[in-house]
Amino acid sequence: MDTTSFDPGLTQQYTARLRRIINRDGSFNVRRRGTRLRDIHPYLHLINMSWPYFLATVVLGYIATNLIFAAVYSGLGPGQLLGADAVSGVAGRFLDAFYFSAQTLTTVGYGTIAPTGTAANMVATFEALLGWLGFALAAGLLFGRVSRPSARIGFSRRMLVAPYQSGSSLQFRIVNQRANSLMEVEAMVMLMTVQGPAGQLKRTYDLLKLERNKIFFLPLTWTLVHPIDAESPLLGRTPEDLERLQAEVLILIKAYDDTFSQTVHARQSYRYDEIVWSARFAPSFEFSPEGDMVLHVDRVGEYAPLEIAERQ
Amino acid sequence: MDTTSFDPGLTQQYTARLRRIINRDGSFNVRRRGTRLRDIHPYLHLINMSWPYFLATVVLGYIATNLIFAAVYSGLGPGQLLGADAVSGVAGRFLDAFYFSAQTLTTVGYGTIAPTGTAANMVATFEALLGWLGFALAAGLLFGRVSRPSARIGFSRRMLVAPYQSGSSLQFRIVNQRANSLMEVEAMVMLMTVQGPAGQLKRTYDLLKLERNKIFFLPLTWTLVHPIDAESPLLGRTPEDLERLQAEVLILIKAYDDTFSQTVHARQSYRYDEIVWSARFAPSFEFSPEGDMVLHVDRVGEYAPLEIAERQ
Amino acid sequence: MDTTSFDPGLTQQYTARLRRIINRDGSFNVRRRGTRLRDIHPYLHLINMSWPYFLATVVLGYIATNLIFAAVYSGLGPGQLLGADAVSGVAGRFLDAFYFSAQTLTTVGYGTIAPTGTAANMVATFEALLGWLGFALAAGLLFGRVSRPSARIGFSRRMLVAPYQSGSSLQFRIVNQRANSLMEVEAMVMLMTVQGPAGQLKRTYDLLKLERNKIFFLPLTWTLVHPIDAESPLLGRTPEDLERLQAEVLILIKAYDDTFSQTVHARQSYRYDEIVWSARFAPSFEFSPEGDMVLHVDRVGEYAPLEIAERQ
Amino acid sequence: MDTTSFDPGLTQQYTARLRRIINRDGSFNVRRRGTRLRDIHPYLHLINMSWPYFLATVVLGYIATNLIFAAVYSGLGPGQLLGADAVSGVAGRFLDAFYFSAQTLTTVGYGTIAPTGTAANMVATFEALLGWLGFALAAGLLFGRVSRPSARIGFSRRMLVAPYQSGSSLQFRIVNQRANSLMEVEAMVMLMTVQGPAGQLKRTYDLLKLERNKIFFLPLTWTLVHPIDAESPLLGRTPEDLERLQAEVLILIKAYDDTFSQTVHARQSYRYDEIVWSARFAPSFEFSPEGDMVLHVDRVGEYAPLEIAERQ
Repeated sequence: MDTTSFDPGLTQQYTARLRRIINRDGSFNVRRRGTRLRDIHPYLHLINMSWPYFLATVVLGYIATNLIFAAVYSGLGPGQLLGADAVSGVAGRFLDAFYFSAQTLTTVGYGTIAPTGTAANMVATFEALLGWLGFALAAGLLFGRVSRPSARIGFSRRMLVAPYQSGSSLQFRIVNQRANSLMEVEAMVMLMTVQGPAGQLKRTYDLLKLERNKIFFLPLTWTLVHPIDAESPLLGRTPEDLERLQAEVLILIKAYDDTFSQTVHARQSYRYDEIVWSARFAPSFEFSPEGDMVLHVDRVGEYAPLEIAERQ
Repeated sequence: MDTTSFDPGLTQQYTARLRRIINRDGSFNVRRRGTRLRDIHPYLHLINMSWPYFLATVVLGYIATNLIFAAVYSGLGPGQLLGADAVSGVAGRFLDAFYFSAQTLTTVGYGTIAPTGTAANMVATFEALLGWLGFALAAGLLFGRVSRPSARIGFSRRMLVAPYQSGSSLQFRIVNQRANSLMEVEAMVMLMTVQGPAGQLKRTYDLLKLERNKIFFLPLTWTLVHPIDAESPLLGRTPEDLERLQAEVLILIKAYDDTFSQTVHARQSYRYDEIVWSARFAPSFEFSPEGDMVLHVDRVGEYAPLEIAERQ
Repeated sequence: MDTTSFDPGLTQQYTARLRRIINRDGSFNVRRRGTRLRDIHPYLHLINMSWPYFLATVVLGYIATNLIFAAVYSGLGPGQLLGADAVSGVAGRFLDAFYFSAQTLTTVGYGTIAPTGTAANMVATFEALLGWLGFALAAGLLFGRVSRPSARIGFSRRMLVAPYQSGSSLQFRIVNQRANSLMEVEAMVMLMTVQGPAGQLKRTYDLLKLERNKIFFLPLTWTLVHPIDAESPLLGRTPEDLERLQAEVLILIKAYDDTFSQTVHARQSYRYDEIVWSARFAPSFEFSPEGDMVLHVDRVGEYAPLEIAERQ
Repeated sequence: MDTTSFDPGLTQQYTARLRRIINRDGSFNVRRRGTRLRDIHPYLHLINMSWPYFLATVVLGYIATNLIFAAVYSGLGPGQLLGADAVSGVAGRFLDAFYFSAQTLTTVGYGTIAPTGTAANMVATFEALLGWLGFALAAGLLFGRVSRPSARIGFSRRMLVAPYQSGSSLQFRIVNQRANSLMEVEAMVMLMTVQGPAGQLKRTYDLLKLERNKIFFLPLTWTLVHPIDAESPLLGRTPEDLERLQAEVLILIKAYDDTFSQTVHARQSYRYDEIVWSARFAPSFEFSPEGDMVLHVDRVGEYAPLEIAERQ
């Protein structure tokens, strides 16, 4: 038995009809229960959340902090903030305290409103410290989000069952959608099926062996080929078989990104109904009249049915 | 002899009764002597200390720095700080110098207190530089702490001796307590025993071979299985044997964290009295009526005695 | 078939005369079409752009942001900015609003111009937040550019066909052009040729086996040697053969950089017309009278024709 | 021939008496010539320089920048800086311009000196931008220096030739001088000798095979053992042989640091005159009365001559 495999548990017997468990983007369709609050990592949360939510969190956090400090400064009574007392009324004083708080938190400090009383000075001293630390956190998170290594690998929309040597093969094709260079690109392809007698269905996981599982560079497209030979769990399977087995294919691509100086990962999944039988990928690059290679990034998934492909 | 093993030294003869040397969290119970001050790395210290200590360090450092500068500004005599001389008394002047220092260090600079004398201007020029560098350090440390890669792997509270094929096996189970995805999860399991004739006790370290030591993804739980076969140092051992041998098991889990884009580690230890004989892990996930997988993160350690488990 | 190789696609038939596809610096001469705007990663773009463009982007972004905010403050009408109303004329007020914006964005906040109206205060509160985040991004990018790991490996200008044992070999030489230490230096050398009958030309990729493909340190120079033996695709080839095959050699060097604490990569390419036949590299280091090694970094590419080299 | 080895070049013939080429700290004693200015990486330089130099660079850079801007502001003539004109004399005005520059660069901006003229405002707008970027760089470098991963591995001062099984072995011992945990510690040991007929001396590099070259944890000490067996280049060598061969041993230790979440390296070198023949390392840890392990970090190098060691 291969020691590098996947097995989410020993007991895997199902009686119910199962949904797709691997989403198109390669993530797992698993609902999590019983997690405790202390297992939530704020950084992970803030790094993974969408941009609108993140920016809203920062802006609201900023406003909330200023409201709290404005309430504190107001609560200290008159005579604490120079330049704020001229304003008559509680609302006006609160508003000035709010501006002052923002000027302190961001360390702008115009000085038109400034602390005079001991209490206000003490609070402002603390708020400026808090401002530094808080903005450092916000800024670090912002930059962490922007600079987070990520590969944008384009996958063909379909897997193909295409001829290969004397037999056939399962193929898909990838391309680097960005212009930066990826090196030492590695792939892992896993087949998941649900098998067994009725009421005793078990998920089975098989690694699909690739004709080649690593390339040094990815300047053009890379067609990944799993030969359907005697060792393959797909040998002799028909499209109907794969549907019955609820076959899903999970793909993990790993590469070294020269710009981020880090390893990046990409995942993808295909289900039985995303496999096209008897087809071949069409070329995705051509040569300009000057002899230069021209890559069409958007044609990574183009294919032609076998009869048509053969005629060409 | 296996070249990848663990051996803390060649001479390991004990006469005394020994305490547990590996703590529950996988750290070693070793007291260190003879370390020099220059071997202490301030960054390691500040990154590893608890949050209350860290925040206290930052706040106290801030206050101390301001006190020092307040003393300096006060010591320069009157006429150095504009706006501070109106305050009568040494205490009042010191307090104003303190506020001024904080406003300079944080670069708030309201200007209601400002340097006029050459000396105060020079000191303030230097203090603002120090402020930038100091806050940069504090902010970097704060962000470093928050963004530090860490896996929160949940381990079953007990190891089980469970049936495996025709024989038995030592098992434990892990789960990712966080919702982020871990990939290429690897495990290493080491058995530590104290053996030998009385007065000549020696610690022995054995790697326990796993049925599978790497999985590509950890969306659910992973049951790690050490088959107790002819190669296993546990073959034929009874619970009494393990207690006599003061058996401890050390586990190292290594995984790639997709959010941190880094490799993370987790450690855990089990002692002989944390091994349950003849039991089996209970399933920790189920299927919702809609066919979705539902994982109960908090049930990673659930097991049933073998007789009960068999009956189910 | 070697599983670690290079294959940019399955269909590689050419009819046209082809240009060099690997540039001297190891990058691929591929034009990309069909990329979508959302595949552009701003960070990658800003990290990879040249220094003049980057600095211009920062300065222009700063000026543009200030112009926008100056327009906003001006648009709020008079009485909003204290100290700016003394200036007569729209241009003067706009200019003051511009200065005020810059003082707010950078959090300098002199206070000679300061917001008094509610609207101006609100905008300034937001602008100071934006300033913090914007400068954090700019600063992070600046530091990211400066601290980006990069190896500066010097390659010999030519590859040599030099005698090796009883046969001959293809050689090139590298040196670390920087004084920092590189460890665990690894090399990969690939030969690319265009072969086949007219109108059916196909690119072929072969890994060239090295006598040694990894060294632990690179304090001096390293001569990489591909023995032209029975396994080599170069056996029996003449200079004319290599030109007809449009031979290009692609080199990838990987090393651990002790200062950056990261793995760094360097690439290089040689074409058939950059190979010198029957030559030998000249020593690039010597010994000082005191017995010290002296390395001449700039002599990494020095060689002598074989007859001359032999005579020495 | 082992493909993972060290060979700084093919031609290595010496006629002169040679100095030690590997320094005690594992760095190479090589003088570099012919490097170009553009090969100097400012970041590498600033990260590697000593603390006093680094701090002096920051402070002097700060002062120099302020002097330049002070000259610019002074050069703009009177009426440009509010609050600075009260001071009579060129020196006084320059000094005020200097303070103003510092207040702008650090974004303190008290406002007691503030720009009024268009020219001064423009320069200040630019200086505040420069301040942000400059301090970001300085702060990043400062934090980069502080947070730079580094292992402090303690090496025994001497290598020992100690008995091993039926023969003998070359040994040295290491300890982690810091309290943080190192994992997956790997070692590489290389012997360098100068051999050959007079006037034709050549440096030879041999990897010394270790009884064990990797351990999972380093909580105590680790004694690294090279068995002097039939495969060893040291078999049958005497102390006089090693001196004649100018033997130097280079050691590279690689480990994963749990706190830095990075791989760290340490190097060390021993020369023939740092090898002690017929000795044995003394235990560096003991047990407290309570049964706890007590490690004496400073005793990593302690050893006893063999006769004495045997008697114990």
